[in-house]
Amino acid sequence: MMTGAQYKASLNDGRATYFEGKRIDDIEGDPVLGHTVNEIAATYDRFYAPGPDARSPLMSVARSAQDLRDRIPILHQADLVANVTYQSIMTLMTAAAKISDCPKYVERIGAYVDRAQKDDIRIVECITDAKGDRSLAPGKQHDPDAYVRVVDRKPGGVVIRGAKLHISGASYAHDLMTIPTKAMKAGEEAYAIACVVPVSSPGVRIVNTTYAPRGGDARTFPISAHHHMPEGFVIFDDVFVPEERVFLDGETRHAAIFAHSLGLWERLGGLSAFVEEGDQLVGFAQLMAEANGLAGEPHIREKISEMIIHATILRAGLEAAIANCSITPEGAASPDELYTNAAKYYGAANYNLMVRHLHDIAGGAVVTTPAMADLENGEVGHLVRKYMSTGPGVDGEYRMRLFHAIRDLTADSLGGWKAVTNIQAGGGLYAQRIVTRRYYDLAGAKKKALAHARIENAPDLSKKR
Amino acid sequence: MMTGAQYKASLNDGRATYFEGKRIDDIEGDPVLGHTVNEIAATYDRFYAPGPDARSPLMSVARSAQDLRDRIPILHQADLVANVTYQSIMTLMTAAAKISDCPKYVERIGAYVDRAQKDDIRIVECITDAKGDRSLAPGKQHDPDAYVRVVDRKPGGVVIRGAKLHISGASYAHDLMTIPTKAMKAGEEAYAIACVVPVSSPGVRIVNTTYAPRGGDARTFPISAHHHMPEGFVIFDDVFVPEERVFLDGETRHAAIFAHSLGLWERLGGLSAFVEEGDQLVGFAQLMAEANGLAGEPHIREKISEMIIHATILRAGLEAAIANCSITPEGAASPDELYTNAAKYYGAANYNLMVRHLHDIAGGAVVTTPAMADLENGEVGHLVRKYMSTGPGVDGEYRMRLFHAIRDLTADSLGGWKAVTNIQAGGGLYAQRIVTRRYYDLAGAKKKALAHARIENAPDLSKKR
Amino acid sequence: MMTGAQYKASLNDGRATYFEGKRIDDIEGDPVLGHTVNEIAATYDRFYAPGPDARSPLMSVARSAQDLRDRIPILHQADLVANVTYQSIMTLMTAAAKISDCPKYVERIGAYVDRAQKDDIRIVECITDAKGDRSLAPGKQHDPDAYVRVVDRKPGGVVIRGAKLHISGASYAHDLMTIPTKAMKAGEEAYAIACVVPVSSPGVRIVNTTYAPRGGDARTFPISAHHHMPEGFVIFDDVFVPEERVFLDGETRHAAIFAHSLGLWERLGGLSAFVEEGDQLVGFAQLMAEANGLAGEPHIREKISEMIIHATILRAGLEAAIANCSITPEGAASPDELYTNAAKYYGAANYNLMVRHLHDIAGGAVVTTPAMADLENGEVGHLVRKYMSTGPGVDGEYRMRLFHAIRDLTADSLGGWKAVTNIQAGGGLYAQRIVTRRYYDLAGAKKKALAHARIENAPDLSKKR
Amino acid sequence: MMTGAQYKASLNDGRATYFEGKRIDDIEGDPVLGHTVNEIAATYDRFYAPGPDARSPLMSVARSAQDLRDRIPILHQADLVANVTYQSIMTLMTAAAKISDCPKYVERIGAYVDRAQKDDIRIVECITDAKGDRSLAPGKQHDPDAYVRVVDRKPGGVVIRGAKLHISGASYAHDLMTIPTKAMKAGEEAYAIACVVPVSSPGVRIVNTTYAPRGGDARTFPISAHHHMPEGFVIFDDVFVPEERVFLDGETRHAAIFAHSLGLWERLGGLSAFVEEGDQLVGFAQLMAEANGLAGEPHIREKISEMIIHATILRAGLEAAIANCSITPEGAASPDELYTNAAKYYGAANYNLMVRHLHDIAGGAVVTTPAMADLENGEVGHLVRKYMSTGPGVDGEYRMRLFHAIRDLTADSLGGWKAVTNIQAGGGLYAQRIVTRRYYDLAGAKKKALAHARIENAPDLSKKR
Repeated sequence: MMTGAQYKASLNDGRATYFEGKRIDDIEGDPVLGHTVNEIAATYDRFYAPGPDARSPLMSVARSAQDLRDRIPILHQADLVANVTYQSIMTLMTAAAKISDCPKYVERIGAYVDRAQKDDIRIVECITDAKGDRSLAPGKQHDPDAYVRVVDRKPGGVVIRGAKLHISGASYAHDLMTIPTKAMKAGEEAYAIACVVPVSSPGVRIVNTTYAPRGGDARTFPISAHHHMPEGFVIFDDVFVPEERVFLDGETRHAAIFAHSLGLWERLGGLSAFVEEGDQLVGFAQLMAEANGLAGEPHIREKISEMIIHATILRAGLEAAIANCSITPEGAASPDELYTNAAKYYGAANYNLMVRHLHDIAGGAVVTTPAMADLENGEVGHLVRKYMSTGPGVDGEYRMRLFHAIRDLTADSLGGWKAVTNIQAGGGLYAQRIVTRRYYDLAGAKKKALAHARIENAPDLSKKR
Repeated sequence: MMTGAQYKASLNDGRATYFEGKRIDDIEGDPVLGHTVNEIAATYDRFYAPGPDARSPLMSVARSAQDLRDRIPILHQADLVANVTYQSIMTLMTAAAKISDCPKYVERIGAYVDRAQKDDIRIVECITDAKGDRSLAPGKQHDPDAYVRVVDRKPGGVVIRGAKLHISGASYAHDLMTIPTKAMKAGEEAYAIACVVPVSSPGVRIVNTTYAPRGGDARTFPISAHHHMPEGFVIFDDVFVPEERVFLDGETRHAAIFAHSLGLWERLGGLSAFVEEGDQLVGFAQLMAEANGLAGEPHIREKISEMIIHATILRAGLEAAIANCSITPEGAASPDELYTNAAKYYGAANYNLMVRHLHDIAGGAVVTTPAMADLENGEVGHLVRKYMSTGPGVDGEYRMRLFHAIRDLTADSLGGWKAVTNIQAGGGLYAQRIVTRRYYDLAGAKKKALAHARIENAPDLSKKR
Repeated sequence: MMTGAQYKASLNDGRATYFEGKRIDDIEGDPVLGHTVNEIAATYDRFYAPGPDARSPLMSVARSAQDLRDRIPILHQADLVANVTYQSIMTLMTAAAKISDCPKYVERIGAYVDRAQKDDIRIVECITDAKGDRSLAPGKQHDPDAYVRVVDRKPGGVVIRGAKLHISGASYAHDLMTIPTKAMKAGEEAYAIACVVPVSSPGVRIVNTTYAPRGGDARTFPISAHHHMPEGFVIFDDVFVPEERVFLDGETRHAAIFAHSLGLWERLGGLSAFVEEGDQLVGFAQLMAEANGLAGEPHIREKISEMIIHATILRAGLEAAIANCSITPEGAASPDELYTNAAKYYGAANYNLMVRHLHDIAGGAVVTTPAMADLENGEVGHLVRKYMSTGPGVDGEYRMRLFHAIRDLTADSLGGWKAVTNIQAGGGLYAQRIVTRRYYDLAGAKKKALAHARIENAPDLSKKR
Repeated sequence: MMTGAQYKASLNDGRATYFEGKRIDDIEGDPVLGHTVNEIAATYDRFYAPGPDARSPLMSVARSAQDLRDRIPILHQADLVANVTYQSIMTLMTAAAKISDCPKYVERIGAYVDRAQKDDIRIVECITDAKGDRSLAPGKQHDPDAYVRVVDRKPGGVVIRGAKLHISGASYAHDLMTIPTKAMKAGEEAYAIACVVPVSSPGVRIVNTTYAPRGGDARTFPISAHHHMPEGFVIFDDVFVPEERVFLDGETRHAAIFAHSLGLWERLGGLSAFVEEGDQLVGFAQLMAEANGLAGEPHIREKISEMIIHATILRAGLEAAIANCSITPEGAASPDELYTNAAKYYGAANYNLMVRHLHDIAGGAVVTTPAMADLENGEVGHLVRKYMSTGPGVDGEYRMRLFHAIRDLTADSLGGWKAVTNIQAGGGLYAQRIVTRRYYDLAGAKKKALAHARIENAPDLSKKR
């Protein structure tokens, strides 16, 4: 296993990473991007165990409902890249079981996972392609590179070209798990490529973006100043990938398996984050109501009750997904697809409404509270404190900190990032609806309806039309 | 245990029951009210076992999560009065555990439950009082009878007066479990009365209402013609209740215990019905879409996907409630309050939207489809069939039956009854929000928010205001 | 003009009309269908003026915004068939202006409208066809009669076959304005038929359905017992239509004009009804809240405020549609398409939520209130009255009447009919969205967005994709 | 009238303004706050006319519906402080008419408005107080300064103390129109103070906050880099106000008049902004759909149609408010309260959902698009451009600019500010509901309901409870 210091050292591998027009050679030293290196290193140190056989609990496979449940608080303690690494490992294992007709890949996956666990590396998921014109299939694009594809073959490996978008933490990982974003058809073999690419490979270029606060006072960004994870726009500019790292190469029939396998784990992660966040939003709403003297106000109580129901419904979805998990022949636990997807959709679709409730309860000071530094100004500091106070026991500074936290979380750069990614993680609300439908027992529902209507001998029209 | 025939005979006990202005002496023979007697008798026969020690599985106590889960399909096979009897028994057992400081009542409850199980009787729940002016407490009403109260005491019992509203199946039960609708304060001792009153007691009068179809063709009401349960407006016109049937008499501190205990089981029943119904609504929507040739239409698919997510969220709530059940010291399983309430609220709040989707998908023929009898008319029957057909394999009659079922279920008398009672069962949306809030860990949510905001030493304002 | 008595006499024209399996030869005398004859006759009498040149104000053309506004209360006083007649006349006039390249039809329309106004007849709109498999075009159906079509030509006219569904008041009108339900393509000439068919034509057969209460006490149905309008399933079983009544015959390019013209007037009528109904729902909610003593309860007030906003938004839509009306070259006023459609959609989409609020406020007694006849029963009448009262000044009977009105309007047969037809009138929510989009200035919105983003020289992609 | 240059010079009046802990003596020169000075100066120049009698069209009174309508595009061309100045003038004129029993104040207001128009100054509205514990009235606060109050009287004027929050543009105005935030009761005379305070008065201190981008590339913030308006936390640290600037001083009965008068104009301004913004959001959604090749995708079209309906409903509200304006005896036009409030509420309540649709349509690149500067990087610029392109005619740079505009507007600091202030302007959703209710004809709605239910002689319970 790696320590935080070893992790930091491992980033000096010549990776080509960029930010706002400039190449960044020393990520750790960058005033905006550097903080995240420390966050990740801290997770390494938190879970470090010495010895050649030590394995991170973050990377072990869950084997029962209880295991899945116990894993959640552990993952909440870890940074996002560690979470994604866990999802990637689980995805590879789930996918391997579904491509057993290609033993070569299964074997490579097994060897890779073993090595990754041993080396305690970080892996991020590269799914979404540039995609070009969304009304055209990968093979019909004006620019054939709109989806990542094999452009050349060399002894011992393949050369890929293309780009993957929205790759959280790409510049902070060791490997890029690169998989097709969707099913591929005959003729699209070059696009049926799954492989694990070292970030340091020649030709890999990562352009970073981030919601991290810029140079301001960390007290004004009490959340995002401490946790932020840049997104990578990952470009494969003709990158050689050795064959032992290639897990699919032209078998179009299997192209969608990786993304589908990943989808479940990604959505479980998203749902689990929603559950935590749901409680936090309730908590902030109640704290603000109490600080303002409004906790007993009927309309405030009603809104908080709605937030509570929202948070509880999300948790029920997670509970049901875990309680109804299935166990693979190899003994790996896998949450229930139907509940995971439905609850993830519910959380994504209603997030904005919960934020509206919080803003409605907290009031305009969410965006107009003076900076913490203003408290230190000799001319106005004491007056700001005085007027931000709401009575004995409710110091102005306490309320200011609450307002800044709410603004940071829901009404500033991080809040915007959340609003968008909550919807988009797992493919937009439309895709999430589709996936839920796929796992629902529609035939069973029709049977129930027919029985209730006392209709026997109904025609079976499900295939005909 | 009782057979259906014995049950029917047991109704001839002189009960005073009324319908649309007339006293009904022979319920079984009444053209509107009679059908329900047969429904209930059928449940009796379905679960009958001979022998003096036989006990109905409908009346036994669930002892584990699995037990609770297994009970659901059994209860779905039983009529509503049998379901309510089960809830009443579970309520009495739960309440008994909470009034252990009154051993007299605990003992009476035990004896009563034993006897009820042995005699295989049916018990309905009488909670909601007439309530008078809702802005005034029971003890402040202009008419002191607005809430059921003890008006006299006689040797061996009490005399009660008042009315209980919305009592499903009252005229079909043997006993009326009469409990305070809410907490009572000092001075309201007369209202703190819980007892079990035989329907045949002198002074009990029940006015029935029903959504049952009137004299029409049963084929036009394929659901409500077969299942309907009249509601009783139950009047206690100075009714003597013997003391062995009195379970609370003046102890205001315990007044709310019965209603709270019942609430959980009632809402579990409601949630379990929502889950079933959620699937049925999806089924009807999909059957109609297929019958109309619209199953592939994107906007239709989207609406059905939303209905699927709704049905799945409800089921997740039920699963979570059961998976997280608690077991009382006596070994009775009790579903989780928080999940039960939140999911019940969610189902009630969104029911109308699901019905809107169904109506939107099915089309105007939900309310304009000719009667089944029109098919038999020599002049137009063949033409109605022809124009109600949508192609080979989709006979007009089949579609007509689907439309009538949807109308009956969602757009006619039964549908209206459902729309109202889905919201009101469990006390209106407002009350359901309040109850959910009560069981939520609000202190924990505040802690999570403070930790996320990195605020230590926050003032505790929860009690102050 | 006609008196009510003349109208009644005019129905004895041999029309073939059916109800629940039986042919009805005397509509006026039918216990269920007869009431509506009197309703329509009453409108005739209300607006009757003697003399050969008298014309009904219901049939005159609106010429300004003020005219359109003034017409609304007049139309609210008239029955539905009179309203539909007005819409039909306005539709024919609007359509005539758009098919000026076919002077033959324009002339016939002019003559027809003149005659209709003079004779003071009632016209209903026949739009929706049987439609068969919705995934297939009219010309591709398994049964070519799934859409009304010309099947033969005879000297002086055409013979049509097919069916039209959801025709409100068909059995009560004199003429059936039969128009294509949608655009037709080359090859579908036989389906491009618009004509006005006398109800009494040989081959016309109308199967009626209705939400009218059956034989019960009118006091239990205080609204629907007094106003109900049966729907007709209208069959054209090879009906000859003389050519002076044919307004389109094969010109597929004009097929959609009639339905589009009608759509606007139908939706204006629908919107205007929503506006009235919006206020009624608010009124019922407030009356119930007051009668229950809950008018000051915060959560009740909030719900009523939401209902008020809903009602006001609807009225704003109607106001904007009228204030922005356009005047045709011939001087006829036509409401703004965009506002009419958007507000109609808004009303249809939110109706169910408003009803949910009303049910939530009113309580379970909406469906469990005893019948008015129970008040007259000597044994329980005084007790029902006592317990339905909520204090001095709030007599039990008053509350019962309110509950029955709410049930009748929103939670029984009429309520179901409204729930479905509110959505479906104007073609389902999907169609209403499409139509609104068609009239919105999308190019203007894009320009505003580009200006706000300071993007000049944006590519024009609106046609390309 | 003033030119932009004169305006800039006028700010050098010794005002005490602060930002992030520091006093700012040269606002125009401040790297963050300075831009706004130029925005405001540009409005001055745009509307400047020479000569002593020249008056700004921004400050003239609207006198008809058409005037109100014509004013809207003019106000859209002006900065926010100019808009607020207009609202302040209209408010003073409306309020003056309502306090005619205090001729002294009416006279002062007249003289002040005259002078303000002549001097072409900028006025901001100071309403919201610090408010302390919201469960206590102004006179019951622990800190009596929680609401602005008169603390002393000196010859020729009063001395006030307190703070006003969320004062947009406070540091950029000349005068602070300071009015009670709510009704005051007997005993709260000191809080019934309305006056106009020069920003430069000794004791006035303004702490600024802003969503303006910090030092980044303006291309990444295409909207907020060009338009931003800091909010002021305005402290009155014992400020002397001369009596000719005092418009209310102790007359508690009139305390709410100013805020109510302002509310209407503020909400009209908010509604008018919503209308513009509604179109912009539709425009961005459609532009993104087209750029992504998804404009024909059914679920995308449905979402855009919903956004269109939303934008149209808002516009209908504005149209109805203006078409139904009232004209004061003095000839000033005043929009309809009911429509203004209902539509403002509707816009505020649904804003988040519209943003969700936009995010759902646009995709994750809203928050992960590389910076414009990355295009200029020699190693990756061409690749970023390539992969952000979606085909011929859709250059990568164009899409990047669209994404940055959407992020800036809806998913970054400005977006957060909008989300909060859209709800809070006009007092939170709760207050907006209350105000709408106040102007609705509830008695009329009840009459309609009673008529529909055929209930005559209903008791009048509206006052009783």
